Amino acid sequence: MALQVSVIGAGTASPELERLAEQVGRLLARSGCTVVCGGLGGVMAAVSRGVATEGGTAVGVLPGESRAAANPWVSVCVATGVGHARNLAVVASGDAVIAVGGAWGTASEIALARKLGRRVVVLGPMSPVAPDEGLTLASTPEEAVELAVAAARHGSSRPAAL
Amino acid sequence: MALQVSVIGAGTASPELERLAEQVGRLLARSGCTVVCGGLGGVMAAVSRGVATEGGTAVGVLPGESRAAANPWVSVCVATGVGHARNLAVVASGDAVIAVGGAWGTASEIALARKLGRRVVVLGPMSPVAPDEGLTLASTPEEAVELAVAAARHGSSRPAAL
Amino acid sequence: MALQVSVIGAGTASPELERLAEQVGRLLARSGCTVVCGGLGGVMAAVSRGVATEGGTAVGVLPGESRAAANPWVSVCVATGVGHARNLAVVASGDAVIAVGGAWGTASEIALARKLGRRVVVLGPMSPVAPDEGLTLASTPEEAVELAVAAARHGSSRPAAL
Amino acid sequence: MALQVSVIGAGTASPELERLAEQVGRLLARSGCTVVCGGLGGVMAAVSRGVATEGGTAVGVLPGESRAAANPWVSVCVATGVGHARNLAVVASGDAVIAVGGAWGTASEIALARKLGRRVVVLGPMSPVAPDEGLTLASTPEEAVELAVAAARHGSSRPAAL
Repeated sequence: MALQVSVIGAGTASPELERLAEQVGRLLARSGCTVVCGGLGGVMAAVSRGVATEGGTAVGVLPGESRAAANPWVSVCVATGVGHARNLAVVASGDAVIAVGGAWGTASEIALARKLGRRVVVLGPMSPVAPDEGLTLASTPEEAVELAVAAARHGSSRPAAL
Repeated sequence: MALQVSVIGAGTASPELERLAEQVGRLLARSGCTVVCGGLGGVMAAVSRGVATEGGTAVGVLPGESRAAANPWVSVCVATGVGHARNLAVVASGDAVIAVGGAWGTASEIALARKLGRRVVVLGPMSPVAPDEGLTLASTPEEAVELAVAAARHGSSRPAAL
Repeated sequence: MALQVSVIGAGTASPELERLAEQVGRLLARSGCTVVCGGLGGVMAAVSRGVATEGGTAVGVLPGESRAAANPWVSVCVATGVGHARNLAVVASGDAVIAVGGAWGTASEIALARKLGRRVVVLGPMSPVAPDEGLTLASTPEEAVELAVAAARHGSSRPAAL
Repeated sequence: MALQVSVIGAGTASPELERLAEQVGRLLARSGCTVVCGGLGGVMAAVSRGVATEGGTAVGVLPGESRAAANPWVSVCVATGVGHARNLAVVASGDAVIAVGGAWGTASEIALARKLGRRVVVLGPMSPVAPDEGLTLASTPEEAVELAVAAARHGSSRPAAL
């Protein structure tokens, strides 16, 4: 199985953030990674589009019970039916996580990712979360992908205590 | 996005059921369907193996928080972290569902699939669930796949009331 | 903590099933049990009303994110936000389970309850699930409550394999 | 139904944080609020103990499938079976939320609470989350409870966009 990197961010995003997310998607696909995201719009659509452009696999993990909500660039779709609790599935499915901007939903994903021991790379304006040793800031899509792929290869996961 | 068919069944299964599941996986992959399953052993591993043999995409939707539990034939992995509640994600992600044998876990998936309006085709010894108009019995993997693909194409989904 | 018994059934029910459910609620409350249900209408509302009439505690475990959906007889409300996956929480929270009629949603709860090793007592027209050694039929609310309370006291739970 | 206030914090906590949490529990119970928490140790046990001391209702919303993990001061127990996704249920069930210290788990709950529009009052050393207009700092248990009860009465909930 390929490495999997989760990309998180808001469902509505500025053109600048979408541009960053699309580039992240392109670079991850070129690196041979499967990309996991929340499957909806904004950053999720932009990263999926970047992946699709390079012929990669973009997995959309949706909150609802229907695949109809997925953005058109997703190639595999998981309709979880568990609402915001799908945020846990999004980050647990990545060997590492890249956050592109984001607000409270993204903040919950960063926190859950860190709870599970996943390395998180934050690109763009800092999300409302303080850095810790497993949370790194990146200045460019290239740097974000390089850091995330290295973390995913290294295997950052550890068992989580509830 | 390709049609998605979910295949459900027990984590430990007889050689006969595994043979049926593997054949279901092969046939679904040849039909161009993405196959969604629970990602673990037994029927889930057998169907994933069948898909992999044909170069298809097998998505494993795991109950735990780690990809390490996935069987080796899964090509995309979603670690949901929500335990048995991942059964909902498994069936919601399919445009139609095929059950190969199974016990209480599979019965819960059949019931959730019907609750969501998904068509279910049951292959092998009948699961502990009574047929209704959306639940069909099949005698062979060929018949099961034919019925499921037709149902998936037809679009069996309807909005679910909670 | 008091014994907890979960009562499951459809969100719309016949007057006869509602009468049975209300009586089950009364009897469980008189037995000192906390009653857990799905918190909505039909059988869930009827059992909550029965509990409230006797001054007992009825816990509503809702699918949505808002307490506003709870029926007015619930005294404690848990808004899970996980949709149909709350069915797992409903049955896991009971030391034993009573089903009053029901369709596919209830069938999924019975199956999940049995998967977790909970004893299930079925009252009223049989749900679409086959009996096993942990699933008993009852003819009256009195018999259902007697069987469920005995099972709850005995401690029917065993660890569940995913 | 009584007002419900959710109290969140880490499963292992300093004596000082536990003292604060216990006092929060006492004050909420005296205010007639039902208290919802994660049902385990540390801050969750301390707040439950405070509630029990005053004869109030402490609801433990557990990650696992068994009630056996609940702390002994919980009076109603919901075993969700959905792991860390129960964090969503904990905060969704409160009309307002009080955080007593906490790390990444608590940060995920604060973020989910804000995503759902719940007012959050933070007591003790600031959690790793930046304040916004719906997130207030409190210096004492008295102040935290006063702010939370006022927010709960005012009805801070609004529909959440996924």
